[in-house]
Amino acid sequence: MSDVHASRRMRLRDRCIVSGTAAALVSSPANVRYLTGWSPPGAVLLLAPAEDVIVHCPRTPGEPAEGQPPEDIRCVMLSSAAGDAVVAAAGLFPGLGADSLAVEEHHLTVARHRAVASAVPGLRLTDLGQAVEQLRLVKDEDEIACLRIAAEITDQALGELLESILVGRTERHLALELERRLVDHGADGPAFPTYVGTGPHSGAPRHVPTDRRVEEGDFLSVCLGACYRGYRCEVGRTFVIGTAPAAWQVELYDLVFAAQRAGREALLPGTACRDVDRAARQVIQAAGHGEALAPWTGHGVGLEIDEDPRITPSAMGKLDACVPVTVEPGVHFPGRGGVRIDDTLVVRPTADGGPELLTITTKELLAL
Amino acid sequence: MSDVHASRRMRLRDRCIVSGTAAALVSSPANVRYLTGWSPPGAVLLLAPAEDVIVHCPRTPGEPAEGQPPEDIRCVMLSSAAGDAVVAAAGLFPGLGADSLAVEEHHLTVARHRAVASAVPGLRLTDLGQAVEQLRLVKDEDEIACLRIAAEITDQALGELLESILVGRTERHLALELERRLVDHGADGPAFPTYVGTGPHSGAPRHVPTDRRVEEGDFLSVCLGACYRGYRCEVGRTFVIGTAPAAWQVELYDLVFAAQRAGREALLPGTACRDVDRAARQVIQAAGHGEALAPWTGHGVGLEIDEDPRITPSAMGKLDACVPVTVEPGVHFPGRGGVRIDDTLVVRPTADGGPELLTITTKELLAL
Repeated sequence: MSDVHASRRMRLRDRCIVSGTAAALVSSPANVRYLTGWSPPGAVLLLAPAEDVIVHCPRTPGEPAEGQPPEDIRCVMLSSAAGDAVVAAAGLFPGLGADSLAVEEHHLTVARHRAVASAVPGLRLTDLGQAVEQLRLVKDEDEIACLRIAAEITDQALGELLESILVGRTERHLALELERRLVDHGADGPAFPTYVGTGPHSGAPRHVPTDRRVEEGDFLSVCLGACYRGYRCEVGRTFVIGTAPAAWQVELYDLVFAAQRAGREALLPGTACRDVDRAARQVIQAAGHGEALAPWTGHGVGLEIDEDPRITPSAMGKLDACVPVTVEPGVHFPGRGGVRIDDTLVVRPTADGGPELLTITTKELLAL
Repeated sequence: MSDVHASRRMRLRDRCIVSGTAAALVSSPANVRYLTGWSPPGAVLLLAPAEDVIVHCPRTPGEPAEGQPPEDIRCVMLSSAAGDAVVAAAGLFPGLGADSLAVEEHHLTVARHRAVASAVPGLRLTDLGQAVEQLRLVKDEDEIACLRIAAEITDQALGELLESILVGRTERHLALELERRLVDHGADGPAFPTYVGTGPHSGAPRHVPTDRRVEEGDFLSVCLGACYRGYRCEVGRTFVIGTAPAAWQVELYDLVFAAQRAGREALLPGTACRDVDRAARQVIQAAGHGEALAPWTGHGVGLEIDEDPRITPSAMGKLDACVPVTVEPGVHFPGRGGVRIDDTLVVRPTADGGPELLTITTKELLAL
């Protein structure tokens, strides 16, 4: 894997040179991992003409180290008493042959930015912007393979839940059980907090599980995903509890299903992201439920669960091949509930069979 | 509770006025919650002479809303398409009667800081620094009551684990089970990711659970905590698996126990934080294991699991009454394992009985 990471760093270096900066300080954890395969707590990556260096502070609170230390980059370990890895990395700077440094202004705090400036007087600080995020947008086949495994794990966890008794159990318990099953099947952990909503909570985007118990006749919405080697996917399904769904439930489900299918079918290279959103959104708007829809109908996934591209009415840009995204329209009526259906897919050209569905759990309306 | 929050905001306002700024923009989630009782995703609090306003963006990815919306503050909800709550809050500024604004430079990114400056031309931006964190340092009795409940929940979850069969189970499973039990007993959720280390992983600070199974003769270290109404506590214990501990295990355990007791006994109002660290640290250093000790032996807890004060060799400042802290020395030998013992206590004057131990799980060396 280290060749992959070295070539990513080379691409970033090329971008820096084009923009007139010879060195970059990457502080966003997902970006550090993308460029090195490793992301210990508080780590930053310094890309400089003379060499690349990771500075990390292994006992900083927060996320554990993820991935393996790279063999081809110098790693400098700070004790947590020695302070901030960003400042320490900047302190290495005078020996590294550059007079300007691009930093991630969307990630670095004002206080850390100032500390970097003070640590190296005379150093010109510029903005790296979203350069690494842009590199991350199109995935290679190894990244997609990780997402595919993450999706398999997620489908397995969800499938097992569907075979168990659900009535009488709380949203919180179901969420914890799903997370345990993700880990059982080989996930690093959940890709994001698992959402379980039943009855009036069903269909709400990002509903935090409560102590409400599943009852006969409820809609039950779940949204979960595995993280595998850092790559995060997402699946969302809505079920009906009991022998047979009510007429309004079938009608609403069919509507959201049609919207989600329209979104999925729009996922082709060259399509504007806002057109994917519109494809899904207009189905629901035409039925008069536009107000009950979330402001997004999908988003990119990868090393973060919510990354570019955004699938929203005002999104800029077009889809490329090999970009994994979710398609997840949902309708929620406060006090009554609703439906969400959410898949992770990879954009592929029609010649390759069109969008690749990673999360294959059935989207039939199951009565459980 | 809203009186409590209003009086906290009043204290912050007083500090701002002293430092020459009439308005403040609070963006750190724990600080927003401390000042309003509420912390929906992406929320910021604008404290201005004319009125206080919370601006939030309810469908931003990330943490769910915590707490209840305050009744006495205007809440402005943004759709996520409308952008950043920080910028929107700054945009409200011209009507609020101030020409300068203190922001949390240790939390705000450079990019957001710049966006605030652009949104309100002519506005003078200053640094609020850690003003809210300083207010949060000494807890009131309602906050301590929440911590006490969090500790009870934590002790219950740990106690149940000790009654179950441990040999053959993996660190990951034990961690997930502990987290489930925390929720069963009424926690909002775990206060931090649960650490379980067995055999060579025992005693390591912040060890991420692996698939290693518990074996006869192992040390088993666990560190967990409940979050209750936003307040987070922590307990850590080390056990021996099997009929009887080996001599080296008893010796090491007694050493860490003595160090932890020395740290606990040093927790009195007016004691320098570094002296608490030294009390624990010197016991272990005297036994020749100073190198095997983490760079901290404790830290404050509250709305965040790791907040001021720091109990480290270089920490500044003294303890006050009603400050909750952990005391958690540990010795870890790579490849062999070790011992950690961790309690959450509240600093109390001797006249009130001295430090109040919140986490009461036994610290005898149990053979399980």
